Amino acid sequence: MRIYSSLRVERMLVLGFLSLITAGTLVLWAVDRLSGHPLSLLDALFTATSAVCVTGLAVVDTGRDLSLPAQGVLLLLIQLGGLGVMTATTALPLVFGMKIHLRQRLLFAGGLGMDTPQGAVRLLSTVLRYTLAVEALMAAPLFWGFLQREAPGRAAYLAVFHSISAFCNAGFSPYGDSLETFAGTFWVPGAVMVLVVLGGLGFPVAAELRACARRRHPLSAYTRMVLVVTAGLILLGTVLLAFSEWDRAFRDLPPLLKGWNALFHSITPRTAGFDTVALRNFSGLGLGITLTLMFVGASPASTGGGIKTTTFGVLLACSWKEVQGEEETVVWGRRIDPRTQRKALALTVLYLATLFLAVLGLCLYEPFSFRDLLFEAFSAMGTVGLSVGITPRLTPEGKMILVFLMFWGRVGIVTFLYGILARTRPGKVQYPSAQMPIG
Amino acid sequence: MRIYSSLRVERMLVLGFLSLITAGTLVLWAVDRLSGHPLSLLDALFTATSAVCVTGLAVVDTGRDLSLPAQGVLLLLIQLGGLGVMTATTALPLVFGMKIHLRQRLLFAGGLGMDTPQGAVRLLSTVLRYTLAVEALMAAPLFWGFLQREAPGRAAYLAVFHSISAFCNAGFSPYGDSLETFAGTFWVPGAVMVLVVLGGLGFPVAAELRACARRRHPLSAYTRMVLVVTAGLILLGTVLLAFSEWDRAFRDLPPLLKGWNALFHSITPRTAGFDTVALRNFSGLGLGITLTLMFVGASPASTGGGIKTTTFGVLLACSWKEVQGEEETVVWGRRIDPRTQRKALALTVLYLATLFLAVLGLCLYEPFSFRDLLFEAFSAMGTVGLSVGITPRLTPEGKMILVFLMFWGRVGIVTFLYGILARTRPGKVQYPSAQMPIG
Ligand SMILES: [K+]
Ligand SMILES: [K+]
Repeated sequence: MRIYSSLRVERMLVLGFLSLITAGTLVLWAVDRLSGHPLSLLDALFTATSAVCVTGLAVVDTGRDLSLPAQGVLLLLIQLGGLGVMTATTALPLVFGMKIHLRQRLLFAGGLGMDTPQGAVRLLSTVLRYTLAVEALMAAPLFWGFLQREAPGRAAYLAVFHSISAFCNAGFSPYGDSLETFAGTFWVPGAVMVLVVLGGLGFPVAAELRACARRRHPLSAYTRMVLVVTAGLILLGTVLLAFSEWDRAFRDLPPLLKGWNALFHSITPRTAGFDTVALRNFSGLGLGITLTLMFVGASPASTGGGIKTTTFGVLLACSWKEVQGEEETVVWGRRIDPRTQRKALALTVLYLATLFLAVLGLCLYEPFSFRDLLFEAFSAMGTVGLSVGITPRLTPEGKMILVFLMFWGRVGIVTFLYGILARTRPGKVQYPSAQMPIG
Repeated sequence: MRIYSSLRVERMLVLGFLSLITAGTLVLWAVDRLSGHPLSLLDALFTATSAVCVTGLAVVDTGRDLSLPAQGVLLLLIQLGGLGVMTATTALPLVFGMKIHLRQRLLFAGGLGMDTPQGAVRLLSTVLRYTLAVEALMAAPLFWGFLQREAPGRAAYLAVFHSISAFCNAGFSPYGDSLETFAGTFWVPGAVMVLVVLGGLGFPVAAELRACARRRHPLSAYTRMVLVVTAGLILLGTVLLAFSEWDRAFRDLPPLLKGWNALFHSITPRTAGFDTVALRNFSGLGLGITLTLMFVGASPASTGGGIKTTTFGVLLACSWKEVQGEEETVVWGRRIDPRTQRKALALTVLYLATLFLAVLGLCLYEPFSFRDLLFEAFSAMGTVGLSVGITPRLTPEGKMILVFLMFWGRVGIVTFLYGILARTRPGKVQYPSAQMPIG
């Protein structure tokens, strides 16, 4: 298989996101101003970035401080952003008449017929149909859930808003306190969990699952990795959060609802960002668990952020094989090649380095505790949107740091730097190996 | 080159450290009890582990709560522990009649004639002579420095104690406040800095530098990496700390001494653990910089801890080459092979995972802030010994967590797990590569 350079696609992707954020900022600012709301340009930028990057961190109360037309603009930005990476990588090259080279993110797409423009259009249409179908389907239980508390018209609007916001892992809600009034119910949180998990698996996995269900061929190592890591994190997160918050944040709930809300709070940090119980009531242990889940995030080519389940899985597999002293890293009969390992390593290092610099920056400008700043930074970088409540009170400098984190977290720091720094022609010289003792 | 299994050496190393800690605990406890001091068994265990693992974290005041004979025992444990990894890997196989397989840590040693018992004995004797020579040489400026404040006999004792403690990167001091009374002086901090850096470079680098000075052949990629990362971290750390603490922790010092103490505090977290200015006065930014330096630590086969300068260098080099889109990771005309990359990745992942679990555990048992617990955990795992002052006030559970961290940090978590989990016969099956999208 010939290896294509995907350089132009990476640059288009970065530019596409930047344009969408810029346009969104101006429209949001203008629409809200026309409706008589005084939204500052910085807050418009923050809100637009948060929507396009499907983060959900908010400096203004979505339901109270944004006019209804502005909420519509927000929803559109979320939908565009949520489909962003996938749509951009398939649509942009077509629009600009480029041959489609998706070496880096879409190696798997060969099997889906991505190597021809017709195939790309077919995939794009499948993605859109899948998205709209899931959103429409899950709007029903959401509508039923909201109907218990709201008038039918309002309930329908809320169902549509939350269906899109949850599937796109955006985490925005017209409710100022997210879903905290629904901590004692089952329909709304249940439907949100299903949407978040489906949105977070990524389209290729959904497509492969559907194909496998039809033709009964075995799952690829990639899909297995996504499913195993996703299931493992949800299970482990639920148990640990139930343990840490039983007598803390979940104190006032009956036992069954403690478990139910632990499940919700195990799913939502990767990287939906809704909450049913306020994060500021969580124990240090609970926040630490949430931090880890936010760090890992969702799966590649999905609406979620984080370093991604596959990256996390590769890190774990490499570490496990290393301490076992095995030469090769083999999972499900497939070897993880050195280039993939280096990619996982680079992504994790750059992710952590960016977070580290951001937290140092935040420490300089903000009076809040180290833990809270760490939490908001992880939330922004992972495009999660959970908050311990300090984001609206940040200084302009602090808000700008979070804007950069959301952008990098969504576009992918590796994509971003690769788009800027990559040399298109790698050297072919053979070098002798260095003898480099580690640790 | 045939690849040997170093499994037995790894196991001997783990057992050797465990035995030394156990013996040290009992002797320290007994000696102090005979001298009429009531040292609890847990505190004796903590102190012995801290000494053998050359950490320097203290639950008791070394000068005040330990009798003079106990201080002598402590010094012996430090000297044995400081030479530990190097001595153990060379001496243990000889003692137990094993063939010397040092594949993992001592790949470079082939060039030093390590493949024969005679070579090992020669290397061991070189190591000991080098250690004692440096310690003796640097005791002179230390003696001169201490003489300004103490009686000659006491100054001589302090010079010997600090010379050993600094070269072994142990960080213990008979002074209860480390070197904080010497913040305004030059002789003592200067000599300590030289000792710490020389101890932290590692013996192989020292040996290669000496050989190169004689025969003028070019330096290996390994030595270059150690020197570049070490110099880079010291320089960057000094500048950043001077910036962050100019009007904070270094407030009361004249400008020249601000820079001098910034230099000292840039060197000491990797991983000496002395301080001239109390860490509890540092800003959040300053503590963050210190945290990073503690995380990276010293160089392989040295008296220091951390993930090591070479590991850090490999992580940076891999990330840089990845965003440049280059196939191979080449430094100074030498390629860093995939196995080395995976080792760096595994070590970093396990290091961070251990720290993460430890901090979660500490959060459960301790009432202190997240930032302070994070700091003590990094300090213990990196065998640094710097403290924001909460270690003596920890619960028994918290102390035990730090004991485990110090042990793992010193023995090396990879060595430890490899010794337990490694399979001696790796499979030779060729597997097809997985197509695994990352990020
Ligand atoms: K989100
Ligand atoms: K130390």
